[in-house]
Amino acid sequence: MLKTRLASALRHPLIRRQVHASAPEMTSVNKTAHPFDKIRFDALLNRRFFYAPAFEIYGGVAGLYDYGPPGSSLQANIIAEWRRHFIVEEAMYELDTTIMTPAPVFEASGHVARFADWMVKDTGNGEVLRADHLVKNVLEARLEGDREARGAALAPAPDKDKDKKKKKQQKTTAVKLEDAVVAEYESILAQLDNYSGPELGQLMKTHTITNPSSGNPVGEPQQFNLMFASSIGPTGQHPGFLRPETAQGHFLNFNRLLEFNNGRVPFASAQVGRSFRNEISPRAGLLRVREFTMAEIEHFVDPLDKNHPRFAEVADVELVLLDKYTQAAGGTTTKVMTVGAAVKEGVIANETLGYFVARIHAFLLRIGIDKRKLRFRQHMANEMAHYAADCWDAEIQNSVGGWTECVGCADRAAYDLSVHTAKTKVPLVVRQALKDPIVEEKSVAEWDKKALGKTFKGEAGAIVATVDALGEEGLVNLQSQLVQGSATIKTAEGKEVVLEPSLLTIQRKTFKTSIREFTPNVIEPSFGIGRILYCLLEHSFWSREQDVERGVLSLPALVAPTKVLIVPLSSKTEFEPLVKEVSIKLRQAGIHARVDDSNTSIGRRYARNDELGTPYGVTLDFASVQNGTMTLRERDTTDQRIGPIDEVIAVVEGLVNGKIDWAQACERLPVYDGVQAVE
Amino acid sequence: MLKTRLASALRHPLIRRQVHASAPEMTSVNKTAHPFDKIRFDALLNRRFFYAPAFEIYGGVAGLYDYGPPGSSLQANIIAEWRRHFIVEEAMYELDTTIMTPAPVFEASGHVARFADWMVKDTGNGEVLRADHLVKNVLEARLEGDREARGAALAPAPDKDKDKKKKKQQKTTAVKLEDAVVAEYESILAQLDNYSGPELGQLMKTHTITNPSSGNPVGEPQQFNLMFASSIGPTGQHPGFLRPETAQGHFLNFNRLLEFNNGRVPFASAQVGRSFRNEISPRAGLLRVREFTMAEIEHFVDPLDKNHPRFAEVADVELVLLDKYTQAAGGTTTKVMTVGAAVKEGVIANETLGYFVARIHAFLLRIGIDKRKLRFRQHMANEMAHYAADCWDAEIQNSVGGWTECVGCADRAAYDLSVHTAKTKVPLVVRQALKDPIVEEKSVAEWDKKALGKTFKGEAGAIVATVDALGEEGLVNLQSQLVQGSATIKTAEGKEVVLEPSLLTIQRKTFKTSIREFTPNVIEPSFGIGRILYCLLEHSFWSREQDVERGVLSLPALVAPTKVLIVPLSSKTEFEPLVKEVSIKLRQAGIHARVDDSNTSIGRRYARNDELGTPYGVTLDFASVQNGTMTLRERDTTDQRIGPIDEVIAVVEGLVNGKIDWAQACERLPVYDGVQAVE
Repeated sequence: MLKTRLASALRHPLIRRQVHASAPEMTSVNKTAHPFDKIRFDALLNRRFFYAPAFEIYGGVAGLYDYGPPGSSLQANIIAEWRRHFIVEEAMYELDTTIMTPAPVFEASGHVARFADWMVKDTGNGEVLRADHLVKNVLEARLEGDREARGAALAPAPDKDKDKKKKKQQKTTAVKLEDAVVAEYESILAQLDNYSGPELGQLMKTHTITNPSSGNPVGEPQQFNLMFASSIGPTGQHPGFLRPETAQGHFLNFNRLLEFNNGRVPFASAQVGRSFRNEISPRAGLLRVREFTMAEIEHFVDPLDKNHPRFAEVADVELVLLDKYTQAAGGTTTKVMTVGAAVKEGVIANETLGYFVARIHAFLLRIGIDKRKLRFRQHMANEMAHYAADCWDAEIQNSVGGWTECVGCADRAAYDLSVHTAKTKVPLVVRQALKDPIVEEKSVAEWDKKALGKTFKGEAGAIVATVDALGEEGLVNLQSQLVQGSATIKTAEGKEVVLEPSLLTIQRKTFKTSIREFTPNVIEPSFGIGRILYCLLEHSFWSREQDVERGVLSLPALVAPTKVLIVPLSSKTEFEPLVKEVSIKLRQAGIHARVDDSNTSIGRRYARNDELGTPYGVTLDFASVQNGTMTLRERDTTDQRIGPIDEVIAVVEGLVNGKIDWAQACERLPVYDGVQAVE
Repeated sequence: MLKTRLASALRHPLIRRQVHASAPEMTSVNKTAHPFDKIRFDALLNRRFFYAPAFEIYGGVAGLYDYGPPGSSLQANIIAEWRRHFIVEEAMYELDTTIMTPAPVFEASGHVARFADWMVKDTGNGEVLRADHLVKNVLEARLEGDREARGAALAPAPDKDKDKKKKKQQKTTAVKLEDAVVAEYESILAQLDNYSGPELGQLMKTHTITNPSSGNPVGEPQQFNLMFASSIGPTGQHPGFLRPETAQGHFLNFNRLLEFNNGRVPFASAQVGRSFRNEISPRAGLLRVREFTMAEIEHFVDPLDKNHPRFAEVADVELVLLDKYTQAAGGTTTKVMTVGAAVKEGVIANETLGYFVARIHAFLLRIGIDKRKLRFRQHMANEMAHYAADCWDAEIQNSVGGWTECVGCADRAAYDLSVHTAKTKVPLVVRQALKDPIVEEKSVAEWDKKALGKTFKGEAGAIVATVDALGEEGLVNLQSQLVQGSATIKTAEGKEVVLEPSLLTIQRKTFKTSIREFTPNVIEPSFGIGRILYCLLEHSFWSREQDVERGVLSLPALVAPTKVLIVPLSSKTEFEPLVKEVSIKLRQAGIHARVDDSNTSIGRRYARNDELGTPYGVTLDFASVQNGTMTLRERDTTDQRIGPIDEVIAVVEGLVNGKIDWAQACERLPVYDGVQAVE
């Protein structure tokens, strides 16, 4: 059925213009004609160099990937939309802070002590495995084997090929389990993130979990810090770490940001940048890597007022939620709620957290994530990062990791600013002028300084500090002791000191405060760009009903690496001026286009660009040279339209900028009747 | 002279519209009224948070800086223009490769052995100094002292304050030197980059150079590798380095890129990303940092054809050049040449290198670098990186580093692809179908395989390999020995083997080659974004004639962090709908604007934004509410115009997108006669 466009164009030198023809019925596209095929999908991504293992010619390194031209562009477009959606729309302050970080920062933040995973060692061959992943993989394989054993007794497998592949990958064996065991495994898996290292060790013993690749038992779980360590400067005396998140760079610059915002909260800083985690044994492609691009927002807010001025704009957004109570009870049933209701009922802690959850939701759908494969899961108590007060993950379903955390939205409370203040003695606080000064009575100790110095000499300072630290109740108590003759206090060093009434009196005084000083809380939406990108690729992948080998990535034009493919019929020089003209016009319209003048058929060139996710193609042929017309092809439908070059460019501009859809484009451009001859 | 705009607006509730008024004479702006003042300049950058020492509240770390909101935006805009100017304009392939790199890659590339600087240790206090910087600083200070001593005898210093400052910074003392010594120092400085470590050590002895901060002598120069080291994975068995350049990521992916380009050269890959260099003792602000953003291009080209198809477009561009011969002779005199002439006369090695030098030149001028402070300097032989065949640096003059390398443009020849091929045995080559196959006669050895195996057994393979490696001349030689009875060869292991004529014959055969296989050469333009950004800030800084304290950054709108400041007269709620309307309209026009509704006078808000480099400001006042007008202020002239809101937005759009200039804007918008009252 493949004829060359050349022949077709020669037979139709003059193409009837139907500029005012109404939009025809769109060719129906069945994007789920073939079940998702991971092997074909991976082959496409590899063949088209979306990404590839880094240092491949050196044998590669687990958890490190390079993005090729389409992957880089897709990533850049996702980030550009992220900037528009968050930074521009909410007037956030962008930062660009360093990756290399001196050790004291992560000592204060808690990362040196606690940013670790539990690992176990194979007692036979020394292989190192992540403890929770080992439990998960073994129990899931047993459940799969059970399902197979039960299913086999009930009905034949619907797709033998697929089953075989799966079996090979997971090394399942069809063994039926007791109903109670199935229930126990499911309960363990539902709360897997909630177990401590020793608990994981106990689970491995109870359920005889060994290393599946060797059959050997594993040792006790041990902590492994996930930060890459290095050393700054030539002396080797300054240890440093590569940041595992961009967040600390925001917190350390808090005072400068606050000043930039004229001393007021709320405001948000934002940063897109690389972070590093020395994962124990990464094996999940882009979902678990050792170096990755993050996009993080730190929204600083008054702890007494976590309402959000724009909350009303999102209150009606419906979300799929999986709360912590459901999970702690071993369940995974989600519920659909509006953000408004979730905040009102206390499911989501506050308006600001809810607002960002809704904004994250909108962002993910806008770039093309499948709504049916998106949910928000709340962290359970033990699972939560050491700094978080409440946390919701945007989880995206995919074939590798199941429901996978792609965005975290945490209320870090005042944790970070407080620990850095404590360590550096630099106050990271907001000072707010109060409209109505607060007037309060307080007890204070008034000392006879001469007598104090004479009695206690060098210790006087410590004694005054001890009394100051007693607080209101303690001072009232001290007063009542003094009235009775003398009072005994204990200094910070534990020394008991007796105070005589001649040394001090406790008095009530009136204080007027016109400045309120507080440490802001932080709401942190944190995006793993690589994970989102991977899930988006999976959700965009399908193949044509008539040809399973012909993959298509239906990426939205907004994020597609290239928006328009320019296809000259041949590399003949007579097309060159037209190719140049169209290229320049598209560039001037701000549309990213590429020319494909390679020596293959137009059909093959289109097929390659279907795999690259290029939404539109324009073809220049002899009719273009003669009549100044150009055809426009839509990727998903393979529908082709024709029109004058400038009109086609105007339509493409409307399509790419989201101002018109394909149906409207079809109203402006008549169908191209050479289509069948070309595809 | 400061009156509030409020009062002025009330006095002029109705503003006369002069839409068709002709452009008035522009206020003349004297941007060099005050000499460049480094202290005021630094204070501005710090106050407005363009950038700041990273980990400042922890005491900072030398060579690590964070970019605040205006610095981040300026950097993002420079990178965006870089992408348009290079990647989009030349259809390059963008990559995003990892920073963490396993050691074998840098062993092959030569970085483990040679990517080092020479350092010396203070023999008293152990302070570590970079050897070449020590020589440079001490000799420059002596020359400065000499100039002072000579100048003091001739004329009084024109600006005493400035001289005092300089003296304090450089610790110069006014000591006159012999004319011959001055000449020698100048010659040393002109070729400083050309000295090896031992030569630097000798210079320190000859000229008694000690550590200026302690007066102590320093030890022998030692090499210090500049790569940050780390370890990948949990076992500690896989050493890794943070990349010191993005280039290796391009080279390792060469085969994938070549395939992406349908097997043809030339093509170019491009990457923007972080790199790391563990500098010995960085003290030059953004000019010498330990972590930085680079933008690198690797243009792969046929070594037999380094012409460039677009060379004609740049041939007439005039460049300021400082070639290697001039420098090696101890001189620093530049010459002005067109790129065309420079390539023709062999000053620049080839067209492709020249093309990129011209494109770099155009890029730097476009973002706002001062043309008078830009030159291209050729590397001298010893100075050149270990991989380069020819190299030109774009040097930008600034107050900290003098003429500073900001872009390197190197011809790396086939070095990189060759070393990785040698190490991995993966051929990184182009296979080109030849139009006319090459037919040639060659000598080949034909073996009696049976006899060979019987005679040499396990050694047979090594013997065949040895003979194959002899080459044409060797085989002819072998043949003549065989004719005489027997031949002796030496295997790779050094073993001598005698070959009898019964084992082999040497024959002439005809070979036809229809594929040409070659390793492409690489032209590499490599941009240090932070250095360019710093120089651009210096070149953009000035202060108003009437007020030295009032700094202005005259950044071009193209790269300015914010394009338009929206200034409501007050934070009164009646301005809110208008502020929102203008914000949305500007956002829809793709123009980055910010609202400043802070509680200070309009004059102060404008002054702050002059320091932030915001080129335009629009003011909403009571007249805006009543008449729908808005004033537009231009940063450099402080000129103010007025017009209907939509017309002002249209003018701003034209200005920001470079479609009109300020004179044209003045033709469309009449002067605002309340100006004097506001400024």
